[in-house]
Amino acid sequence: MKVSSTCSGQALCPVEWRGGKVKLIDQQKLPSKLVCINIESYKEMREAIRLMRVRGAPALGIASAYTLVLGAKGIKVESPDKFLMKLSNLSNELKAVRPTAVSVAKALDKMLETASKNRRFGIKKIKAALILQAKRIASESLEIEKKIGGIGSRVLKSGNNILTYCNAGALATAGYGTALGVIRTAAKKGKKIHVFVPETRPKLQGARLTAFELLKYGIPATLITDSMISHFMARGAIDKVLVGADRIALNGDTANKVGTYGIAVAAKEHGIPFYVVAPFNTIDGNIDSGEKIPIEERNPEEVTHIGGKQIAPSGVSVLNPAFDVTPRRYITGIITELGIIRPPYRGKIKSMMRE
Amino acid sequence: MKVSSTCSGQALCPVEWRGGKVKLIDQQKLPSKLVCINIESYKEMREAIRLMRVRGAPALGIASAYTLVLGAKGIKVESPDKFLMKLSNLSNELKAVRPTAVSVAKALDKMLETASKNRRFGIKKIKAALILQAKRIASESLEIEKKIGGIGSRVLKSGNNILTYCNAGALATAGYGTALGVIRTAAKKGKKIHVFVPETRPKLQGARLTAFELLKYGIPATLITDSMISHFMARGAIDKVLVGADRIALNGDTANKVGTYGIAVAAKEHGIPFYVVAPFNTIDGNIDSGEKIPIEERNPEEVTHIGGKQIAPSGVSVLNPAFDVTPRRYITGIITELGIIRPPYRGKIKSMMRE
Repeated sequence: MKVSSTCSGQALCPVEWRGGKVKLIDQQKLPSKLVCINIESYKEMREAIRLMRVRGAPALGIASAYTLVLGAKGIKVESPDKFLMKLSNLSNELKAVRPTAVSVAKALDKMLETASKNRRFGIKKIKAALILQAKRIASESLEIEKKIGGIGSRVLKSGNNILTYCNAGALATAGYGTALGVIRTAAKKGKKIHVFVPETRPKLQGARLTAFELLKYGIPATLITDSMISHFMARGAIDKVLVGADRIALNGDTANKVGTYGIAVAAKEHGIPFYVVAPFNTIDGNIDSGEKIPIEERNPEEVTHIGGKQIAPSGVSVLNPAFDVTPRRYITGIITELGIIRPPYRGKIKSMMRE
Repeated sequence: MKVSSTCSGQALCPVEWRGGKVKLIDQQKLPSKLVCINIESYKEMREAIRLMRVRGAPALGIASAYTLVLGAKGIKVESPDKFLMKLSNLSNELKAVRPTAVSVAKALDKMLETASKNRRFGIKKIKAALILQAKRIASESLEIEKKIGGIGSRVLKSGNNILTYCNAGALATAGYGTALGVIRTAAKKGKKIHVFVPETRPKLQGARLTAFELLKYGIPATLITDSMISHFMARGAIDKVLVGADRIALNGDTANKVGTYGIAVAAKEHGIPFYVVAPFNTIDGNIDSGEKIPIEERNPEEVTHIGGKQIAPSGVSVLNPAFDVTPRRYITGIITELGIIRPPYRGKIKSMMRE
């Protein structure tokens, strides 16, 4: 892993393929330092994903694809069949690192499919095809995000106070954003938007990343703690909620960063529209309802320590689920590149999947 | 301000009068260090209160009374009338430091009343009476807390998972606790209680103080972030909510640490009983409803910095209200030393005040 000096961060692209390496913005270092790192090995990328140097469902999909490219590089066998088997093992291992985001599984499955389709051309060709496929995942994602921004921006009115959560911006995606992409597009269209940014404990993506992005874009924003959200809703300070998603079940139930569900409950209580913003492929056709979405449990130290400093007594028990599930009845609409899906979700989602 | 070496912390009494000084457990240092400080001047106490070295509504009432004793010491006039005027000025200044907790205003008003009653005996006698009055406020508070513990513990069943919030334990009070006092008494009676402890951003009283107290008492507890509360409610992991209060309006609306209102909304959504636990004098007879309770706005650095470390980009806007108001319709009952008040509150509270 090498720290790059060429990290301008102009475009805030969290993950790129550059000269046979993966270039990441190290999101653990933000907002105090904008540092890029170049990673050459599968193992290092897997650890970077585990440590959330790169995070956010769409970005994780792209990062996983590139990680598999690095993994493929390191496979030293001569038979394409053996190669594919080893590649599949690496893919399974990678899926387990961050199990909730379906984009990871979908990107890796697409990579394996590409490898399989190119089996008869030999390992060298397979490796080349994998690089192309990973790049295609990245470029298609970016296109989708911009489409989502255009569609979603129609929901926002000039003067709106929008609450978002965690980071669903450039840093979480191919480089434009989902929930934050909608806000960016609305602002570009000249709508006056102010954003409430809850800090998003334990990993503080709101404080560290979303606040950083909004300052960069010049969009007015106010940082609050997660505990203040309902207070500001009660005061009429919030007009709409826009959040990203890690996995959406066929019935519309949505897994996103832990804390999202509580926001949805509060939004319903205050009559505030609550939108999920995500690429259509965040919907998992294999999962019928939210209870079946796997929820990642992370290291207790994320709760007991902040920036290396211990904030809780030693020996205390901790639970640290990284995501929660918001049942469909709390969701006003799901904003995708194919349009805004409104309840009831299941029938519409199924017919959109068939199209 | 001197750091004391005699801080055993056996009883976790947050504020005491010792040899003409105020002895505080410095709650800013917990949980990593249990340090006591001895304070001899009004000014230093006022700053200790502002910095939350001592906090929690009942403890603030006691601390304010002792602070006024120190203030009285420093008043160098000969006329009792001038003395009373200067004392009243100090009292007003002190009330403004943490304006939400009504216990501060009530304790200080009682102190001024005591001074006024002793006017004709001269300044020396007034000062002596003030010390006695402050000690009486402390000892009466402790008695009240133990009564509340007994009354409230009947609400808890063995096997219950209780969510509390912020710190309403010994450290917030005269030394026993309100919400946490109920839990302590239930545990002492042999009931098996497990406590969910949200960390309580921005000041982390849950992680730093409540987790510390529960470990000390040997009561099983699990630390979570504030953002996880609704998730665990949805999973059926929480049976009841018990929180403290800083000020209760005549109609039952309750101001408490910011985040309390969101918990109340989530509790209602999941059908979980939500109890406020507080001395009866937390009810402010002069305030009709929650909208009229003053909400303290604190330093933005409490949000942007944790343990001295900056976690948000420089230049971001921040809002940092220290409290929120939970409307009466979310409150199952208010547990006081005079019994558990159930809705509708106004009539019952008024008749209890007359008794």
